[in-house]
Amino acid sequence: MKATFYQGDHKFSISEKSISDPAEGEVRIKVAYCGICGTDVHIYHGMMDKRVKVPVTIGHEMSGVIDAVGAGVSDFSVGDKVVVRPLDDRGAQASDKGYDHICQDLKFIGIDSPGAMQQYWNVPAFTLHRLRPETDLKLAALVEPLAVACHDVRLSGLKAGEVAVVLGGGPIGLLVALVARETGAKVFISEVNPRRILLARELGFSVINPAETDPVAHLREKTSGFMADVVFEVAGVQPTLDIMTELAGIRGRIVMVAIHGQPKPINLFQFFWKELQLIGARVYEREDYDQAIELIMKNELPFACLITRVAPLTSIQRVFEEIDRQPDGMKVLLDCQT
Amino acid sequence: MKATFYQGDHKFSISEKSISDPAEGEVRIKVAYCGICGTDVHIYHGMMDKRVKVPVTIGHEMSGVIDAVGAGVSDFSVGDKVVVRPLDDRGAQASDKGYDHICQDLKFIGIDSPGAMQQYWNVPAFTLHRLRPETDLKLAALVEPLAVACHDVRLSGLKAGEVAVVLGGGPIGLLVALVARETGAKVFISEVNPRRILLARELGFSVINPAETDPVAHLREKTSGFMADVVFEVAGVQPTLDIMTELAGIRGRIVMVAIHGQPKPINLFQFFWKELQLIGARVYEREDYDQAIELIMKNELPFACLITRVAPLTSIQRVFEEIDRQPDGMKVLLDCQT
Ligand SMILES: NC(=O)c1ccc[n+]([C@@H]2O[C@H](COP(=O)([O-])OP(=O)(O)OC[C@H]3O[C@@H](n4cnc5c(N)ncnc54)[C@H](O)[C@@H]3O)[C@@H](O)[C@H]2O)c1
Ligand SMILES: NC(=O)c1ccc[n+]([C@@H]2O[C@H](COP(=O)([O-])OP(=O)(O)OC[C@H]3O[C@@H](n4cnc5c(N)ncnc54)[C@H](O)[C@@H]3O)[C@@H](O)[C@H]2O)c1
Ligand SMILES: [Zn+2]
Ligand SMILES: [Zn+2]
Repeated sequence: MKATFYQGDHKFSISEKSISDPAEGEVRIKVAYCGICGTDVHIYHGMMDKRVKVPVTIGHEMSGVIDAVGAGVSDFSVGDKVVVRPLDDRGAQASDKGYDHICQDLKFIGIDSPGAMQQYWNVPAFTLHRLRPETDLKLAALVEPLAVACHDVRLSGLKAGEVAVVLGGGPIGLLVALVARETGAKVFISEVNPRRILLARELGFSVINPAETDPVAHLREKTSGFMADVVFEVAGVQPTLDIMTELAGIRGRIVMVAIHGQPKPINLFQFFWKELQLIGARVYEREDYDQAIELIMKNELPFACLITRVAPLTSIQRVFEEIDRQPDGMKVLLDCQT
Repeated sequence: MKATFYQGDHKFSISEKSISDPAEGEVRIKVAYCGICGTDVHIYHGMMDKRVKVPVTIGHEMSGVIDAVGAGVSDFSVGDKVVVRPLDDRGAQASDKGYDHICQDLKFIGIDSPGAMQQYWNVPAFTLHRLRPETDLKLAALVEPLAVACHDVRLSGLKAGEVAVVLGGGPIGLLVALVARETGAKVFISEVNPRRILLARELGFSVINPAETDPVAHLREKTSGFMADVVFEVAGVQPTLDIMTELAGIRGRIVMVAIHGQPKPINLFQFFWKELQLIGARVYEREDYDQAIELIMKNELPFACLITRVAPLTSIQRVFEEIDRQPDGMKVLLDCQT
């Protein structure tokens, strides 16, 4: 089988590897598609070289079909379509208070252990979620980032009729916006990239470019001063941090989806003044995966529009280089069988 | 009657004034005691000269007895012991979403309109909370700051058995600690002022001085790594902002009680990593006043220890100067009838 390996310093290699049998409690998956995510691009840039052990196969946004079942695995069979929830929480302790998805000893599969950018992938059966036989495996590769969005919206407590603002219309922001709209909220997106603005508008969202329109004045007008019930910070830059506390109305909830590596100035006075809440959100829990799968199966949302293109696994080096040059696209999937 | 007036630039005057009849919907209160709060000291320092209109009578932490009742007031009678919830929320609008206690047009009585540092005080009846006849009016002057603490603890969702850390053992921090302990939580206080540390220890709290003991290592040991379920930021300085995200355990809630006038660096990565929540808290709602009054009436908590001393209303100038020189004390009450 073919497997790709990140070698460090913007380099991937592809090797022939023998297909190994699943160990006890594991299954072997014939990987169908694997999406490329911001974290994968970070790894490619060498920014996670301390954490990943090169050479390493990365990738965690996948879909596939079970190809072999190890000893002791009874709930899954060969031929089942599945996605993997790439969280190895076997190190969870009491001090994690039941939040095993963010336990202190969490290992993220595809970063801390080998990932899906290969033809066959052995994973523990407890990471699996079963798909229905008719599921489109391309769309199913979106389950992982969609589960992030489901988690974010769930933690926000967003209700039908509320106003949500999504700061940043990248893949995660757009998925958050879709789930928020599905929840019955009125959704506004703020985004600076013209092509991403265009796509978000095509999907029917009210999108503003903060370089052209003042988001605060705009929202004030559109909501008759009620402002946002929920703001999702999904851009990861200081200007959105500056504006999030202005966009939130009284008792507004701000969900911190973006990852800010360094401490950043936050307007705490607004938190006091309007009794705002900031809600940190990281990955997903089991139920978020279930909801994401449900949404993909129903296939009523325009998920297909988020798949910019599908490229052969063997073109991985070129694909990463192109994403780097041209960050306008949304989701690129690697077709792991070609 | 005697009334005190803040004149600007660290100066109070005292004047004889005629007692006026309460207008329609108002009552006249014979003020018993009025506590001096950090905000009053801010005003004294001239830091709120843009907001207050000098000369102005300040003061909002009071207790008293109804002395006359205006037309249209039916629920209160002369002789009733009362406290005032100093929030004039008559300008509340739909966009305040029912959170009238922090409505955009809120007027804070005692800052935006005349306060209680005088012998008689006319206020709208809707601000009143009735006390039982046997209530100690000195302790009742603590209802206002205690209601702040009740609000903070209520918004935190603190439950019996949880671990709470209070950063800053000033009057508000100590009241938060008392309410948190009453809720059944295990409470730790971090404070730098030696006399305040002493007082907090006398009240039975586990107190550390961050200048001597690393609060994070200390809490880790004391909680076997579980860390805090709730952190109350009641100090208002950068070191406590830096540490609050370290002290909170997984899914910990951080209540922002302190008022930070400027944007400050916050470790957003910890919010993401541990799915922390930041909860802004401002003043109180009706039910917090009810709870504070209940606690004062039960008189099972050592509230009396928080009253550093009682001084005559007429000594107001000297009292503010002393508080300024010596910030070790807790609550100083002005006795408004002497
Ligand atoms: N919490 C989690 O578990 C989790 C999971 C996945 C991703 N993330 C994080 O979510 C964030 C978004 O992920 P993504 O893959 O969509 O990233 P992305 O970089 O593709 O998207 C960010 C978007 O923000 C836009 N932007 C930049 N400046 C802006 C501004 N001033 N106003 C409005 N928009 C602006 C960019 O043009 C871009 O489209 C990243 O920080 C990522 O690390 C978090
Ligand atoms: N949210 C509200 O509605 C509301 C209401 C009242 C007061 N407040 C605010 O609450 C805060 C506390 O009020 P207060 O009257 O108790 O003020 P205070 O200044 O008397 O108390 C702050 C305490 O923090 C201590 N401190 C300073 N640096 C510290 C550090 N590094 N670690 C630990 N402790 C440290 C100080 O020694 C002091 O005892 C203020 O910011 C005030 O403005 C907010
Ligand atoms: Zn991802
Ligand atoms: Zn006060």
